[in-house]
Amino acid sequence: MDDRAIGVFDSGIGGLTVAAEIKKLLPNEKIIYFGDTARVPYGTRGDGIIREYARQDCRFLLKRSVKAVVAACGTVSSVALDAVAAEADVPVYGVTEPAARYAAEKYPRGRVGVIGTPATVESGSFAKLLSRFAPECEVVSAACPLFVPLVESGMLSGEAVELIASEYIAPLGSPDALILGCTHFPLLAPVISALLPETELINTGECLARLLASELEPGSGGADEYYVSDIGRGTRELACRIMGGEVALITASAE
Amino acid sequence: MDDRAIGVFDSGIGGLTVAAEIKKLLPNEKIIYFGDTARVPYGTRGDGIIREYARQDCRFLLKRSVKAVVAACGTVSSVALDAVAAEADVPVYGVTEPAARYAAEKYPRGRVGVIGTPATVESGSFAKLLSRFAPECEVVSAACPLFVPLVESGMLSGEAVELIASEYIAPLGSPDALILGCTHFPLLAPVISALLPETELINTGECLARLLASELEPGSGGADEYYVSDIGRGTRELACRIMGGEVALITASAE
Repeated sequence: MDDRAIGVFDSGIGGLTVAAEIKKLLPNEKIIYFGDTARVPYGTRGDGIIREYARQDCRFLLKRSVKAVVAACGTVSSVALDAVAAEADVPVYGVTEPAARYAAEKYPRGRVGVIGTPATVESGSFAKLLSRFAPECEVVSAACPLFVPLVESGMLSGEAVELIASEYIAPLGSPDALILGCTHFPLLAPVISALLPETELINTGECLARLLASELEPGSGGADEYYVSDIGRGTRELACRIMGGEVALITASAE
Repeated sequence: MDDRAIGVFDSGIGGLTVAAEIKKLLPNEKIIYFGDTARVPYGTRGDGIIREYARQDCRFLLKRSVKAVVAACGTVSSVALDAVAAEADVPVYGVTEPAARYAAEKYPRGRVGVIGTPATVESGSFAKLLSRFAPECEVVSAACPLFVPLVESGMLSGEAVELIASEYIAPLGSPDALILGCTHFPLLAPVISALLPETELINTGECLARLLASELEPGSGGADEYYVSDIGRGTRELACRIMGGEVALITASAE
C-alpha cells in the first residue's frame, strides 16, 4: 500500500482525459492534477520553454507528496520527459511509450499513424519508439496545430472541424491504428473515426492507465485535487465535459 | 524632439500589425516591441491573469526607456489598460479608443460591428466607447475565439477558415463598419471582406497610428528592437509576413 496520490499534469485541461482513464481503471487512487491553463497551449512553442514549463509543473506536484508523476501531455512526454524525470525522486510516466508499445505489439508489421501537436510530431517521439518496438511497422504522422484550440474553444463537431480534420488526416491514408498523440484529441475522436472508420484509434491515457495499474503500489483513495493556473473562459465547462460531472477546480500558480 | 522609442507590446506577434501601421505613418520613430509569445494567447484567459501578464509586459518596455507605451492588443486594451497605465510614468495608448472614435465619427447613426477575442467582446469595451461617442449608433459584436490560433498557425485562407469566419460573422448582418478588435485580425481581412463586401473594415492599428502622429513629440529614428518571450514554431514566418520582410527577433523573458 502506498497512500500517496498519483500526480498528473498537463499544459491545460486536455490531460483530464488521462486522469479520467486512470480513475476508471484505478478508482482507489487519489489524483492530484495540475493544468497549466495560464500558459496553454505548449505544442506550438519552442522546446526550451516547454521544458521550463514542464519542470515547474512537475515541482508543483512534488511539493504535494505524490508517489508518481504523470506527464499527461503528448508534447511534454515528447520533448521534455527527461527534464521532468531529472526533477523527480519518484517514477515519472509519459503518454508516448505505453501507447507506442501497445500499437507495436498489436500491429508489428502494420501501418500506424500518429497525430499530435507540431512539437510532438517534429520530435519524432512516437515514431522512434514504434520503430524500436516494431522495426517492421510503417509509421506515418501528421501535426494538427488547430486541434487543441478547437477543443479548448468547445468546437468538437461541425463542418469546419470536419474540414480541418480531413485536411490533417487525409495524407495518412487509412492506417491500421492511429495514436491520438495529444491528450486533447480523444475529444475529437468522433470526428476522426468518421474519417477513418476502419482504423483503431489509440487513446494514450488508456494505455498509460493500464501500465500504472501493473506497476504502482495500490493506494486507498482520498479526495482528488484539481489545480489549474487560470480559470479561463470555458475552462470549467471543458473540465466537466471530460470528467462527466462537476469538477471543483482550484486556482494555483505553477511557480 | 523626443528621441526615446515608442514601446509597443502584445500577447504575441499580432501586435506587429500595429507596429507596421506606426512605421508606415511615422517612419522616423524607433520602435521597441515586446511580444509575449511564451504565453500567447491572452484572449481566452481570465481577466486577472491577463492583467498580471500585461503589467509585466509594460514593465519590460519601461526598463528600456520609452516615451509612450502602446498596448497593441485588443484584449489588453479592453480588460487591462488601467492596470498598464498604473505601472507607467509615460502616456499609455490602447487600440480600442482610437478605433471606436473613428467609427463613431464616421457612422454616428449607423450600424457598427465589433469582432474580437472572447475577453474583448465580453468586456464590452468597444461597445461602451461607441455608445459614449455616438449614442445613436447601433453596435453588434461577436467573439471569434479561433481567429488567433488560425492566424498563429498560418491558416489565413481556405474553406475551413471561410466556414469558421462565416459562422462568427453571419449573425452580425451587414454592418456599415466592422472594427477588427484584435490585432491578429487584419491578417484575415481578405476572408472577412469577402463575407462583408459592403462593410468598411476598421484596422485599430491604423487609427492608433494617426493618434500617435498627432500627439507624440517626433523622434529621429534609430534601429527598431523586436523582443519575444519565445520563438515558437512559425513565429519567424508570421513576423516576416506581417512586417513585409526579415525581422530580427530577440528572445527575452517578460519577467
